[in-house]
Amino acid sequence: MYDKISLIGMGLIASSMAHGIHRHGIARSLVGYTRSQQTREVACELGLVDHMCNSLEEVVEDADLVVLCTPVRTFGQIARIIAPHLKPGATLSDVGSVKSYVVKSVAPHVPANVHFVPGHPLAGTEHSGPRAGFAELFVNRWCLITPLANSPKEPVERLAEFWRILGAQVDYMEPTHHDLVLAVTSHVPHLIAYSMVGTADHLHRVSKTEVIQYSAAGFRDFTRIAASNPTMWHDVFLSNKEATLDILGRFTEELFSLQRAIRTGQGDQLLEYFQRTRSIRKGIVEAGQDTGAPDFGRIPRQQET
Amino acid sequence: MYDKISLIGMGLIASSMAHGIHRHGIARSLVGYTRSQQTREVACELGLVDHMCNSLEEVVEDADLVVLCTPVRTFGQIARIIAPHLKPGATLSDVGSVKSYVVKSVAPHVPANVHFVPGHPLAGTEHSGPRAGFAELFVNRWCLITPLANSPKEPVERLAEFWRILGAQVDYMEPTHHDLVLAVTSHVPHLIAYSMVGTADHLHRVSKTEVIQYSAAGFRDFTRIAASNPTMWHDVFLSNKEATLDILGRFTEELFSLQRAIRTGQGDQLLEYFQRTRSIRKGIVEAGQDTGAPDFGRIPRQQET
Repeated sequence: MYDKISLIGMGLIASSMAHGIHRHGIARSLVGYTRSQQTREVACELGLVDHMCNSLEEVVEDADLVVLCTPVRTFGQIARIIAPHLKPGATLSDVGSVKSYVVKSVAPHVPANVHFVPGHPLAGTEHSGPRAGFAELFVNRWCLITPLANSPKEPVERLAEFWRILGAQVDYMEPTHHDLVLAVTSHVPHLIAYSMVGTADHLHRVSKTEVIQYSAAGFRDFTRIAASNPTMWHDVFLSNKEATLDILGRFTEELFSLQRAIRTGQGDQLLEYFQRTRSIRKGIVEAGQDTGAPDFGRIPRQQET
Repeated sequence: MYDKISLIGMGLIASSMAHGIHRHGIARSLVGYTRSQQTREVACELGLVDHMCNSLEEVVEDADLVVLCTPVRTFGQIARIIAPHLKPGATLSDVGSVKSYVVKSVAPHVPANVHFVPGHPLAGTEHSGPRAGFAELFVNRWCLITPLANSPKEPVERLAEFWRILGAQVDYMEPTHHDLVLAVTSHVPHLIAYSMVGTADHLHRVSKTEVIQYSAAGFRDFTRIAASNPTMWHDVFLSNKEATLDILGRFTEELFSLQRAIRTGQGDQLLEYFQRTRSIRKGIVEAGQDTGAPDFGRIPRQQET
């Protein structure tokens, strides 16, 4: 598909891509670069790529596909450094969770003979780092590609095919719309989960042990979300400020309306609301984005050990 | 353990108890009652109990343990009806998610020769009804018992042993403290999840299909919580109003402080906050209340089918 692929950053997403690229024989050569010496050593130890490079300049040399897999706020500077070293005709892509910001900070650096095609695989776990990756991460997940207005068809379709081979379904979207959709399905849910876990952490009348022991009743699901990579999420919120604040405002309105219904004892309003939200869950299970197994597929204790 | 057990209500919890009582041979006789004719027929079809009774008066007759398993706001009226028919020396318990309200609405009806021992198994799934039950639901989950000040030791310990046989770990708690702990670990997380799913449902700029397809990025976890039994949750919020509003107020403070940090670009504050919340997750996995498997133990697509 691509003769040589270059991955910049070696966290959960890049290491999962590396596993997938090997498994499906997508590239003749796969190289990587990461700023941290420790991550570089782990990547070598795990054999994630054919070669870990010592500089950004080196890693993009001769690469047909270069993918930015670091936190999004580093993209601008990396693009500036690698731009003069990109191979003519190469495709530059990324896996960042926001897209308008990425287009704004990367596109101005990209030479005219290089195709910049931003992408975002909607996949992840609460674990991070090079040891967290696995080839199946993208299977049955979506990858959203947000081509620029002037992107030629061929490199966009080749990138789409690349993600399909890794197991993903591909869809195209306009960057600003992508950021709004993700604010709803991902960014605001994460911020809420962080806030709820933080609330529990601050509450002195309830001990931390109690919160942990009795978490199975709902709170547990929030802690998984709130255990995601802090640096990555810090970057996401700062670079998708507008859509996040928009959706947060709407969420707060909804919450206040339910809060008021509780305070004033408007039972019918609560009941009607709770019945409506069930239908969305049904759609998600039907769309294959979650299992219908009870308790989110929680493995019973006996099978775990 | 108990010669005859009587279950009032036949939803997820009662049907799971019925499966467990059979499996572990806990009672010589097990009877049930439910107001809905349809649920009664399903319970008979599944053989959940030895006999489905036709009235509340009949179901408690001669029972050594009577457990209220209906939504909590029905408890007061049920207690008033069954009180004159309870066997002297019997234990009356419940599985309600709130405890102060239950004590207040049930205790005044209970005859002096009956032991009222409120309980709350912290277990559930997003499914409801008699077909949703399974014997392992309580395995490795907690059951909180909130004995009254004048409860004799023996019936309390026997009830604790009953839950242990069903697989649960038992702890004792004061009713008001129980309600505060559950507001943090369960009630407010549910209200937040309902609000977030409702927000997505109202947003016309993002289609329902988009929300459903791209839900794997975080939103999915909220929809599971927001798919829980609407009637049960409506009752929970109305009967644990004080603690819910208290914790909601604190949550909103936290959320607003993060929102302000995003608006004003205070990256350090966000990063520090997100790092702190990770430690609680670690505690939950260590306490065996969740698996450390990535993505909440999500079963890869290939294994599902």
